[in-house]
Amino acid sequence: MMDYTQGKNKLENWIVSEMEFSPDSLGKCEAIMSLGNGYMGLRSITEEPYINETRNMFVSGTFNKAFENEATELPNLADITRMDIRVDGERFSLELGKINSYMRQLNLKTAELTRSFDWVSPLGKELRFVFKRFVSLHDLHLIGMKMEVECLTAPVEFSFESGIDAQRDNSGSQHFLEGDRRIFDRQFIQLVQTTNESEIDVVINTAHKITVNGQPIEYEPKMKMNRRKVWQSYEFKLQPNDKLEVEKLTTLYTSRDKEVDNGSYSLAELREQSLQALKKSVKEGYDLLFNAHQKEWDEKVWNVYNFEIGSEDGFDQLAMRFSLYHLTCMTPAHDDRMGIAAKGLSGEGYKGHSFWDTELFILPFFIYSNPEIARSLLIYRYRGLVGARKKAMENGYEGAMYPWEMAWPSDGEVTPEWGDIDIVTGTQTKIWPGFIEQHISADIAFAVYQYDNVTNDPEFLKDYGYEIVFDTARFWASRLEWNDEKKEYHINGVIGPDEYKEHIDNNAFTNYMAYFNMKLAIRYYEKLEKENPELLEKLKGLLQLERAFADWNLKVEAIYLPAPRKEDLVIAQDDTYLHLKEIDLSKYKNQDRVRTIYDDYNSEQINAIQVSKQADTLILLYLLEQTFLHDDPRIAGNVKRANFRYYEPKTLHDSSLSLTTHAIVASDIGDRDLAYSLFKKSTEIDLGPKMNTSDMGIHAASIGGIWKTAVFGFAGIRLADRTLKVNPALPDHWTHLKFAIQWQGQTVTFSITPSNLSVTVSGGKTLAFENGGNLYTCEESIDIPIAAASSASH
Amino acid sequence: MMDYTQGKNKLENWIVSEMEFSPDSLGKCEAIMSLGNGYMGLRSITEEPYINETRNMFVSGTFNKAFENEATELPNLADITRMDIRVDGERFSLELGKINSYMRQLNLKTAELTRSFDWVSPLGKELRFVFKRFVSLHDLHLIGMKMEVECLTAPVEFSFESGIDAQRDNSGSQHFLEGDRRIFDRQFIQLVQTTNESEIDVVINTAHKITVNGQPIEYEPKMKMNRRKVWQSYEFKLQPNDKLEVEKLTTLYTSRDKEVDNGSYSLAELREQSLQALKKSVKEGYDLLFNAHQKEWDEKVWNVYNFEIGSEDGFDQLAMRFSLYHLTCMTPAHDDRMGIAAKGLSGEGYKGHSFWDTELFILPFFIYSNPEIARSLLIYRYRGLVGARKKAMENGYEGAMYPWEMAWPSDGEVTPEWGDIDIVTGTQTKIWPGFIEQHISADIAFAVYQYDNVTNDPEFLKDYGYEIVFDTARFWASRLEWNDEKKEYHINGVIGPDEYKEHIDNNAFTNYMAYFNMKLAIRYYEKLEKENPELLEKLKGLLQLERAFADWNLKVEAIYLPAPRKEDLVIAQDDTYLHLKEIDLSKYKNQDRVRTIYDDYNSEQINAIQVSKQADTLILLYLLEQTFLHDDPRIAGNVKRANFRYYEPKTLHDSSLSLTTHAIVASDIGDRDLAYSLFKKSTEIDLGPKMNTSDMGIHAASIGGIWKTAVFGFAGIRLADRTLKVNPALPDHWTHLKFAIQWQGQTVTFSITPSNLSVTVSGGKTLAFENGGNLYTCEESIDIPIAAASSASH
Repeated sequence: MMDYTQGKNKLENWIVSEMEFSPDSLGKCEAIMSLGNGYMGLRSITEEPYINETRNMFVSGTFNKAFENEATELPNLADITRMDIRVDGERFSLELGKINSYMRQLNLKTAELTRSFDWVSPLGKELRFVFKRFVSLHDLHLIGMKMEVECLTAPVEFSFESGIDAQRDNSGSQHFLEGDRRIFDRQFIQLVQTTNESEIDVVINTAHKITVNGQPIEYEPKMKMNRRKVWQSYEFKLQPNDKLEVEKLTTLYTSRDKEVDNGSYSLAELREQSLQALKKSVKEGYDLLFNAHQKEWDEKVWNVYNFEIGSEDGFDQLAMRFSLYHLTCMTPAHDDRMGIAAKGLSGEGYKGHSFWDTELFILPFFIYSNPEIARSLLIYRYRGLVGARKKAMENGYEGAMYPWEMAWPSDGEVTPEWGDIDIVTGTQTKIWPGFIEQHISADIAFAVYQYDNVTNDPEFLKDYGYEIVFDTARFWASRLEWNDEKKEYHINGVIGPDEYKEHIDNNAFTNYMAYFNMKLAIRYYEKLEKENPELLEKLKGLLQLERAFADWNLKVEAIYLPAPRKEDLVIAQDDTYLHLKEIDLSKYKNQDRVRTIYDDYNSEQINAIQVSKQADTLILLYLLEQTFLHDDPRIAGNVKRANFRYYEPKTLHDSSLSLTTHAIVASDIGDRDLAYSLFKKSTEIDLGPKMNTSDMGIHAASIGGIWKTAVFGFAGIRLADRTLKVNPALPDHWTHLKFAIQWQGQTVTFSITPSNLSVTVSGGKTLAFENGGNLYTCEESIDIPIAAASSASH
Repeated sequence: MMDYTQGKNKLENWIVSEMEFSPDSLGKCEAIMSLGNGYMGLRSITEEPYINETRNMFVSGTFNKAFENEATELPNLADITRMDIRVDGERFSLELGKINSYMRQLNLKTAELTRSFDWVSPLGKELRFVFKRFVSLHDLHLIGMKMEVECLTAPVEFSFESGIDAQRDNSGSQHFLEGDRRIFDRQFIQLVQTTNESEIDVVINTAHKITVNGQPIEYEPKMKMNRRKVWQSYEFKLQPNDKLEVEKLTTLYTSRDKEVDNGSYSLAELREQSLQALKKSVKEGYDLLFNAHQKEWDEKVWNVYNFEIGSEDGFDQLAMRFSLYHLTCMTPAHDDRMGIAAKGLSGEGYKGHSFWDTELFILPFFIYSNPEIARSLLIYRYRGLVGARKKAMENGYEGAMYPWEMAWPSDGEVTPEWGDIDIVTGTQTKIWPGFIEQHISADIAFAVYQYDNVTNDPEFLKDYGYEIVFDTARFWASRLEWNDEKKEYHINGVIGPDEYKEHIDNNAFTNYMAYFNMKLAIRYYEKLEKENPELLEKLKGLLQLERAFADWNLKVEAIYLPAPRKEDLVIAQDDTYLHLKEIDLSKYKNQDRVRTIYDDYNSEQINAIQVSKQADTLILLYLLEQTFLHDDPRIAGNVKRANFRYYEPKTLHDSSLSLTTHAIVASDIGDRDLAYSLFKKSTEIDLGPKMNTSDMGIHAASIGGIWKTAVFGFAGIRLADRTLKVNPALPDHWTHLKFAIQWQGQTVTFSITPSNLSVTVSGGKTLAFENGGNLYTCEESIDIPIAAASSASH
């Protein structure tokens, strides 16, 4: 039902389309066509309501804990999209009557949602509808909507009710106190809502602007008010060929906006300002406002990332644009107190919390493509040290133990405690990651390292980065457990990336990453000793670094790092995995939904089977290959290959984080067909034919992974400390790949064909990079022929 | 679309039917067909969901204040009625496909809701559905549901999801913390929810019992859990003529249940007990459980009230049964800590609060028909003295100032402060009655007086009644304002029953009722002095009665009681009403919805017009006629007539309390046609063709008024202190009227035809009553011919 072949013109591969209305899978379009600007996100629910819709709007950072026994989350705001439309007194719904020429489209280039169709009412009257909508990138507080209705046959009575409805909640949890509602000048509707715990005021203003046949009309709608609702009611008599246009313009401000979140905030002022902003927007009107928005998308997004994929299948180009579109919508680039949510701002799933998804799956895009935004996202983690220290203290550790799920920086751990049903006991399953999935702290340290190496931003390290790396290393040093028998440090009772294994000892990924984190801290310490002893002194005082440094050196090389088995080079995911029972997993692979194994087994039983939710050992092999471990024979090509062959069949990819890592590793080991097919599968997590996968929101990490697979997988871009490696291995279906990265202050453009790598540098400095084992330097541009063999493996 | 002609057999005039599914006016059937047993009420929402449904279930007395700035209210409980049904994978909905032989019926006799139809799916498969449901009167904690599905043509895949869904709220306000969810033995679903402020635990258990073609089947459904939800999913393949039967049985208990609301309450025990209760019920099954329920309705309701109306229009009999049905459903007869809500338990409207509606419109039915329940309802008000004293104190008065809206007895005033939109300012309108509608205290004193006189229950007076009357009289004495110019006591700045007049001085109803209340207190005091000085001593100490008694005597005769104007006998509703502007009100009379005048005027403007929301002066003339004022020339027949003619045209009947009072007074003044037509209109408030009038719930007072109009109006039953008056005036369309009342411990049956009054007494005592100005006594039975004239006026 989804189609991506639209617009065989300049909009080719820019349009995500729905060709047929499907009321049974509304969640799909609501999420993948969702609109956003990083400040706010709006699910693309239809104006008229349907039973299985999920009417969501979120503003970044407005976290609230509705009830004492719930986790803090992004509250679902009052709805401004719903319009209750009646035609000749009967409810308008696409489930009733007859639909012709249906089309719903998200134009990725202009970030506009449109919906158009001719509708024959059950009484036989025909109307042409066009709906348009955008969430402005130019004015982060603005939402524009437009409805065009043309009467095609007989006269009709057309009426609608529209306003602001704050009877919304998050799956039954209400975050807001009922606030003031008012209609100014019989036109400008204002509703205030305040979160019940974090006390954030949200002020929403909306107004309608009506024309008939292009002429503005004077119309005094009825005014209505109810609990948590305020709206207006309009009635028109349309003659054949009459065209009614309704613009609905909305402004939205909160007391958490950084412009007002200071001592002098006044709700009265915010109400007045936001109302004036609306009045100004209403004067301009939808079209002018939309133009400014569209221009901003060109300037801030498409002209910056300009990512070309030449593929036999245009869908690949579309998928990349889809990725860049949502990476823009989901990211609160405007405010470094906020992070990226696991579902972006497109659904309730994961409550708007930030996971390691950001650092390992999304941040790389920004580090390489828009370092300023990457910096902002890392400052969010720096601010989160407050919460991370709180968590460490609560758990009896030192330093900074980052929360598995992070919301407002000072919150600390916010992972909910209880989840889905346990099919054996009939009770809720305990959610353990908030307690024992600990690699997140090292993942964040890794992100600092990666940001620093790619961007060369010493100010960042000085102001934020060192402190993160040192304090997470302090956590690990306190976390290690001495095994007196083996004379090693172990990390026991954890969950690794593969969450189908709980309470395991020595998860390879966790142990290696802890090792990496402490080694990095030692290296940074020694670097500061030489380069900036003054700063080191300051940090010593703050973080008891002298003792910590001694501790790191004492412990780091005694951390147990599981080596590849001699017989087959397989690295044990943890102490027990390789000894667990193996079962036939085919039933659970490629299901229409994930986690189907839970229909047959509970957590305890899954723990006892060689089955993985997602990449675990493989992500280790991909990730640390980029680091100072890159020469370690333990992770050489053969090891990658052996582990891929061992773990891939056991991995259900029940996490959307999994496929893109497997795709990159498949590309690394030279299996280009498999790599491409895994890439395809990863794009289908949101854009594919399984219609319910995106119900709770888009998959932010998987969307970041689309870019990662293209750049780190097919273009073969890697970081070996401060050296850039470029070893392309295009899929057979691709004719070329072109994109730019930001490398240490310069823009580097890569243009890759199956036989040629062309590198262009702007910025005046010489670029050094490695390709096929050779080191090249480039002043302006260079072309390197690609040997068939060299692209097969690296 | 509603039809009441069903069942030309023994069920004639017992059935409320919907003949055609109307998705645009779901609220009508949800409310008027709602089920209940006084403990709980369940709106008759359909199993499958629709856009404009209101899925409500309430338990009496479980009040909670969800947010600090909201009023306490009855929280909407988790839903157990919804079933998401799919046929061949497509959502089942009566808006889709084709419906044949549709019928939805509430059988008033058995208190069972049924729904049946043949449905042809959009794919052309035909199925026969029958749904049944009851809320047990036998076991107050039990709800029975049954779904029968017969496959009529081709094989179908039939699936449904069903369980407990606590994602419900009250128009967006969530009252419950998310609680434990569990499925025991893969069958018994349990969900706990706890109100966030009053901390009431609600434990809901549900289970499904499946048979195919009459045979129980073993079936292991999928088990599902989500936020605030737990459910199961069933799938069947049905062949032609296969019949699937699904029973869904539910038990519901709360920590407010009087059996457990004591020091030793344990949630764990309640969970266990309620689960065991469910298991027991599941063993019995729908049919046995239903039989017990149906028997209870016969024994406790129909055999007790047995009310016959012989009318040309069978609808009149049905309307009376409808009244008795809902009076039973809405009344928490099981617990004297609870009152009757203005919408019963059938909707969110008025938040489950008790108003004067109970004492003046509903209680009379119970006083005359089921004194034990009347007693319980008055004890609720006695318990409310705590809150009433609190309110008096807060307002600077003495004694007991009853809240305009009452919830839990100790709450005091719970009227919300803000209401609908003010069309002039665009802001919310302030709701004044909670501050200044004060007649409620006297209305409750009146109810004590009426209960005492009709039932002769000295124990009640001793334990509860005196205290209510004395303490409300103390309130009035402290409330009166001395007007030094006129040398009178005034009551200024109030709202009378007619709420379209706010902040008025000397509302006739309020002043007379205050006078009545103080006179009654004096009389009771003097009675106690003679009959029970011991009790008087006790009450003196408790209520400072000695001083109060002196105060009453000093003030009562100086209260200003507006007399009929000399020129036309009209009594001024208040000091200004008769001088206000008159406008053409025809636009606002007989609208499809009430309060249409607010579309054109705001409260302030309505205050300045001679327009009344409801009976005000007329209810005074009806009410106090029954008291020791009955000989007062101020309220003689001519005065009634004059005031009826004056006020009726100015009354919009925008309150459902209005019509039945007007009907009674019309009957009193001999206008039988008008009386009958007003009676008809009053029955149509819920049962009539205006499809949206009952959306927020049934009109409890109006439903009580149906009984009142028949008994006080057409049968002419009145109380003149301790004397029963019976002056029938049957409508021309009625051939006979037969009913029983409980009169001072005896059952008195009246059988009335246009020409004869037959009175039968059981109980052995002599009954004295007045008819047509003559006093009769009756040992067993007596027949009195009715003269045509005597029925015309009294």
